[in-house]
Amino acid sequence: MTDVRVAGVGLTHFGSHPERTGRDLFATAALRAFEDAGVPRGDVEELNYGNFMGALAEHQGHQAPLMAEAAGVNCPATRYEEACASAGVAVREAVRTVRAGEADVVVAGGMERMTNLPTDEVTEGLAIAADDLFEVRAGVTFPGAYALMAKAYFDAYGGERRDLAHVAAKNHANAVPNEYAQYRQEVSVEEALDAPPVAEPLHLYDACPITDGASALVIVSEEYAAEHDVDAPVAVTGTGQGTDRMALADREHLARTPAADDAADTAYADAGVGPDDVDVAEVHDCFTIAEVFALESLEIADPGEGISAARDGVTTADGDTPVNLSGGLKAKGHPVGATGGSQIAELTRLLRGDHPNSDHVADAEVGVAHNAGGTVASAVVHVLEVAE
Amino acid sequence: MTDVRVAGVGLTHFGSHPERTGRDLFATAALRAFEDAGVPRGDVEELNYGNFMGALAEHQGHQAPLMAEAAGVNCPATRYEEACASAGVAVREAVRTVRAGEADVVVAGGMERMTNLPTDEVTEGLAIAADDLFEVRAGVTFPGAYALMAKAYFDAYGGERRDLAHVAAKNHANAVPNEYAQYRQEVSVEEALDAPPVAEPLHLYDACPITDGASALVIVSEEYAAEHDVDAPVAVTGTGQGTDRMALADREHLARTPAADDAADTAYADAGVGPDDVDVAEVHDCFTIAEVFALESLEIADPGEGISAARDGVTTADGDTPVNLSGGLKAKGHPVGATGGSQIAELTRLLRGDHPNSDHVADAEVGVAHNAGGTVASAVVHVLEVAE
Repeated sequence: MTDVRVAGVGLTHFGSHPERTGRDLFATAALRAFEDAGVPRGDVEELNYGNFMGALAEHQGHQAPLMAEAAGVNCPATRYEEACASAGVAVREAVRTVRAGEADVVVAGGMERMTNLPTDEVTEGLAIAADDLFEVRAGVTFPGAYALMAKAYFDAYGGERRDLAHVAAKNHANAVPNEYAQYRQEVSVEEALDAPPVAEPLHLYDACPITDGASALVIVSEEYAAEHDVDAPVAVTGTGQGTDRMALADREHLARTPAADDAADTAYADAGVGPDDVDVAEVHDCFTIAEVFALESLEIADPGEGISAARDGVTTADGDTPVNLSGGLKAKGHPVGATGGSQIAELTRLLRGDHPNSDHVADAEVGVAHNAGGTVASAVVHVLEVAE
Repeated sequence: MTDVRVAGVGLTHFGSHPERTGRDLFATAALRAFEDAGVPRGDVEELNYGNFMGALAEHQGHQAPLMAEAAGVNCPATRYEEACASAGVAVREAVRTVRAGEADVVVAGGMERMTNLPTDEVTEGLAIAADDLFEVRAGVTFPGAYALMAKAYFDAYGGERRDLAHVAAKNHANAVPNEYAQYRQEVSVEEALDAPPVAEPLHLYDACPITDGASALVIVSEEYAAEHDVDAPVAVTGTGQGTDRMALADREHLARTPAADDAADTAYADAGVGPDDVDVAEVHDCFTIAEVFALESLEIADPGEGISAARDGVTTADGDTPVNLSGGLKAKGHPVGATGGSQIAELTRLLRGDHPNSDHVADAEVGVAHNAGGTVASAVVHVLEVAE
């Protein structure tokens, strides 16, 4: 089994770009990834592309061949859709493809365009990640669903809004130096607490924004990197995926995310590392409470302990295990189909030492990315390690 | 590299089932596949699911975990979307996953629900498989696009409407005994010629219908089959995928489908067989002219010779190489996201000898499936062989 390397990463600015087409956004990310990798486009053997709601946002399905054309590659191109984990599964299959020796160079990433739609249509579009028959028609939207999960967590383990406000403040602080982030401004704990409610106990700064953007990674085999003198110091050493029931009503416990537990267990075992080895993590904080679930699935925190991790300084930039140094979905932004690729791109930059926040993790050797779909009915976890 | 077997296949009736939900349709196909395979659901390690327009037809994205739940499996579940080739890529990744030793039992298939929508919304929904900016907004729909391709073919190589009518008559005749087929009635060449025009030179019987339906395959490793005494005499020995530019205006030649040429070349090389070895084929005849393109991509016919294959009796049930003995998309129906899986299911039944049309291919050892997306901007080809 060959070693899998991230040879290059490319991101667009995450934010409001309603005037740009999806293909323009993805091409920008892909071309930046090729430049970062120093890998010629002609060497790309497969394209794995994540997108969630293009049918609604751009009246465009069948986006994979379109994105291959936009990126200037001529190879099999496949679209993956797993709600907010779309790019996560695209990356996962790229890793497995390279490992299996099916290809030496695969581009993986994703794109989402959302701000071109009116806000009510975005809300309705995002809702297709939940169970239409048993949740959406009953009025559930994602802020409402995560609010239910947050309440269940508070009931089971304790915790309060102030704990969540610390997650928001941390991730906003992390986003300030990130040139790709949507919101590069600090938000204080008090500001987060005073913000208007969205769905109790979640207020404005507990929710990620609506974001346009794209991500792309050039993933190569160790042999390709060696042969072509490609500098690719970061390896993807573990990958895992998990599934849960869609509707919250069918879950055994609203304050646990077993799909992510499974994904993390698989990825750690695959990499041969454990939670104690993790130096830095990018996790799926679509809402502040989701970061708490992620920390517990990744076993960075024990059950019931994740809620206080930011407040106690464990996950802050200078804490034991910095989480979401990119700013996270919360402040960097969440272009749904691109997010899973963006997390790996940011971890790669952090581990290579060329991220604006790399100084906080100068000695980091192991990073973990946690990408979740909907209310974590699906989840993908990757382990990255400095290889040389 | 392990040998990959089709242990079981499951199909719903293809037709108009507006009152059934997507999850109901897929569960039916999956449970039939488990029963056919004699493989317990608990052994399933991954689910690869194809769906094209669920966001529009059922306001439902993130369908993979939903379908895992409906099928009663608890494992990583991923949705593939490649327009009309969605299930084709889902099967392809299942084959590669089993080959790589990542899993011993993978369920692959797909589902589409369409007839619950008004006809104009179906047409608009299908259009997202074309280039929205450069084709759909200019008024191109799929009958129009394939009509352009048919005209280009006639200009380049000759041929006439009567040739296409023979394709329709052949596929309708093949569908008569197929219990899963939408249209089990014969259509004569004269009836096809006399039918009302849709987009010249294509008339009513040159086009496939709007169809609801689902397909599922239980794909296993040879080792799993042997160990668990699973009867799985058909192997998937070759897989290939290709990509072309989306918009017809960007293609070099409207009467060639290089994405399928590439997919076929790759699949044949992968299997170590050639076109002369092919005994039976299921190809993507969304329009009669598309079957002609498929024959030429698969090299069952030389360029310019595919047009006369049905008329000359080469591809009829008792011809040298029977094509679309299932009835094809044309008469069996085309539930978009399910079609690629259905083709493999039908080929498996044909090669096992338990298809109502198996008598026509009693000695067949090699079958080929050709599944295309949109106007063949993407294509997937699989080679199946009788293994024991």
